[in-house]
Amino acid sequence: MQIRDALSRAGDEVELFGWVYRIRSGKEKVFLVLRDATGILQCVIGSEQAGFKDAAGLSIESSVRVNGRLRVDERAPGKVELRVSGLEIIHKAERFPITKNQSAEFLLDVRHLWLRSRKLTNVMRIKAELLKLTREWFEKNGFTEVTPPILTGSNCEGGADAFPLKYFGKKAFLSQSAQLYLEALIFSLERVYSLTPSFRAEKSRTRRHLTEYMHLEAEAANCDIECNLKIQEELIAHVVNGIAVNCETELLELGRNPNKIRVKLPLQRLSYESALELLEKKGHPVEWGSDIGSRDEEIIMEEFDQPIFVTRYPRGAKAFYMKCVDGKHAECADMLAPEGYGEIIGGSEREDSITKLLERMKEEKLNEKDYEWYLDLRRYGSVPHSGFGLGIERVVRWLCKLDHIRDTTPFPRLPNRVTP
Amino acid sequence: MQIRDALSRAGDEVELFGWVYRIRSGKEKVFLVLRDATGILQCVIGSEQAGFKDAAGLSIESSVRVNGRLRVDERAPGKVELRVSGLEIIHKAERFPITKNQSAEFLLDVRHLWLRSRKLTNVMRIKAELLKLTREWFEKNGFTEVTPPILTGSNCEGGADAFPLKYFGKKAFLSQSAQLYLEALIFSLERVYSLTPSFRAEKSRTRRHLTEYMHLEAEAANCDIECNLKIQEELIAHVVNGIAVNCETELLELGRNPNKIRVKLPLQRLSYESALELLEKKGHPVEWGSDIGSRDEEIIMEEFDQPIFVTRYPRGAKAFYMKCVDGKHAECADMLAPEGYGEIIGGSEREDSITKLLERMKEEKLNEKDYEWYLDLRRYGSVPHSGFGLGIERVVRWLCKLDHIRDTTPFPRLPNRVTP
Repeated sequence: MQIRDALSRAGDEVELFGWVYRIRSGKEKVFLVLRDATGILQCVIGSEQAGFKDAAGLSIESSVRVNGRLRVDERAPGKVELRVSGLEIIHKAERFPITKNQSAEFLLDVRHLWLRSRKLTNVMRIKAELLKLTREWFEKNGFTEVTPPILTGSNCEGGADAFPLKYFGKKAFLSQSAQLYLEALIFSLERVYSLTPSFRAEKSRTRRHLTEYMHLEAEAANCDIECNLKIQEELIAHVVNGIAVNCETELLELGRNPNKIRVKLPLQRLSYESALELLEKKGHPVEWGSDIGSRDEEIIMEEFDQPIFVTRYPRGAKAFYMKCVDGKHAECADMLAPEGYGEIIGGSEREDSITKLLERMKEEKLNEKDYEWYLDLRRYGSVPHSGFGLGIERVVRWLCKLDHIRDTTPFPRLPNRVTP
Repeated sequence: MQIRDALSRAGDEVELFGWVYRIRSGKEKVFLVLRDATGILQCVIGSEQAGFKDAAGLSIESSVRVNGRLRVDERAPGKVELRVSGLEIIHKAERFPITKNQSAEFLLDVRHLWLRSRKLTNVMRIKAELLKLTREWFEKNGFTEVTPPILTGSNCEGGADAFPLKYFGKKAFLSQSAQLYLEALIFSLERVYSLTPSFRAEKSRTRRHLTEYMHLEAEAANCDIECNLKIQEELIAHVVNGIAVNCETELLELGRNPNKIRVKLPLQRLSYESALELLEKKGHPVEWGSDIGSRDEEIIMEEFDQPIFVTRYPRGAKAFYMKCVDGKHAECADMLAPEGYGEIIGGSEREDSITKLLERMKEEKLNEKDYEWYLDLRRYGSVPHSGFGLGIERVVRWLCKLDHIRDTTPFPRLPNRVTP
């Protein structure tokens, strides 16, 4: 039986497995708080029991199996405790290296052990639920999951931010985005999505960048920007409101009020120009034509209590593949999370005309040859289409109200850290 | 409306989007066969229609929107055809480079276009269903999805088969398996699984190896080899029997009889020694102590019409982390697919005693220092546990009866190919 189930079974005789979470020994009784994947449970062993001496000698993180009767006890966490009648020690732990008030760097060094903390366990459970709800939405809405490659022969998103490696004598890169591959796949499957690791070799140490992260990307044929924003809205509402319900316990344990994260549709839209006005008003002017930076996004999102879209950025501030409107703006939008969390989704309608795409590539001084296969997608039955990319860990950070993005993933990869 | 739905709507007036799959023009009529993500539909435009001339000038893979009335026609594919009353050309395709009887290498060069073929579309749909059924099983059985890293600071599985890269001045590798990370995660979540790309820098060109593939891995606390094999059996039965039902159309179009792949439990088990006897009988003797190679597996699996387990290999033929029994064998099993497809799963109970683990590492001449964090998992509340890894593309290859594994993934990565 698991602890979560035991908590509602007062009166029953049960057998349980767990790790020692806390221990307090007296002359008469040993109190063991055990943890398993589902919760914590107080267990008491009286001195009259055969296992009393063994229990008193246990150390934090030892693994045990206990049996006995559950009874209501108002002082116990969960208000139920187990009166132990049998104890089997599976493994007596050495002195556990993690104690209170240890530095963030030390906790990253012993990440493989720190993962056992209630905090990280709750975060990992919320992340799993987020992945599940995400796929659930896509499946209900006619999207097919696809598996684009991580290894790419050309550095398509451009820039120095890709990790290069040697591939049987050739040069290859780790993918920064599956978008171009997803675009190829809409010509057979029409609506596709993928959930793959993406990599950014950025040296910048911020609270919201990982060098390796889970990238959710989607692409849909015959879908303009309006259709695209509707998909994003509905997806985010399904996922976030689903987590508010399904992960209530985990959120509360993390100190997060589930009602605080709920999303109501439609999301507010702010044009790029209005965003600039807001920034100016708040004393952080940004020049027209520049992208809106991380710090700017945080400042904008002090004003909103749910996600918003910032729409139609100047085309020069965004990638070449975005459809251009009115000669000046890109048909795009970024979704920013509230409470200062900033960008969680970037999306756009894509340029479907090969002539216009080539013009933009020339402007951006991209090498046409590197994109031959991508240009083919506009040569043979081109269709209007849109897509977006969502940073899973950024959403987790917002939902769990985490100070640093490193705690959204079991083994975070940061510029100074690629172990354990 | 999508084509699949149109096929059951004879008599209705509909509007449809599609790409030109085939075209035949006469003086009186143009026959267009359109394809979309769901199927193909014959459309007829009579010379009295305004769109007749445009239709006659269309090229393969052009994208169009048509409207008209559906009617039963026994000669049409799907036995329904559309009498077109309106035609909108979205994009007229240039001359499509793929024609009949082209070489495998050429089709890989234009993979971004070849993905539009019925064959690959069916395979990709089956693969998506396989991923969905896999997760469905894990969620029903108390497993939590986790996201282990791809970038690793040490080359844990050992050997020259890992891709190295530079990581901000340090050396890192692309993951070959998430297993060691999953082992760390069972100490909080107990039952975990992950679905991530794994990488093998093997030069060998075979029909069953990709350098990048989707690796499904699972690990469970308090689970011995029996429990492990039960999980594998139930998982594979759920997935394969689910595909036989949910992907009947796709399998049939690929020339695969859905009943041929169905799995009945329990799966037969063959000890390593019995496998050697069988090989000997079939004229392919293998020496005791050696691993059973790809070719050997194919030979064994000529004798079975559903998957089997080969159990308890000599410990020296398998990885150091497997639990050793009787001083000679590892408590492991490989699941082999029938019809000569060979290994699809490898799994084992893990060694949970640090003393025995250190002995095995010494035997294998592994550097203890590289595994300090992994050894910690046996220092603090060690538990009996098991796990396994499944190659998604290998299962797809078997289920779709594909000659070569390259057709199981949209953009295959092979020793000589990392583009497009």
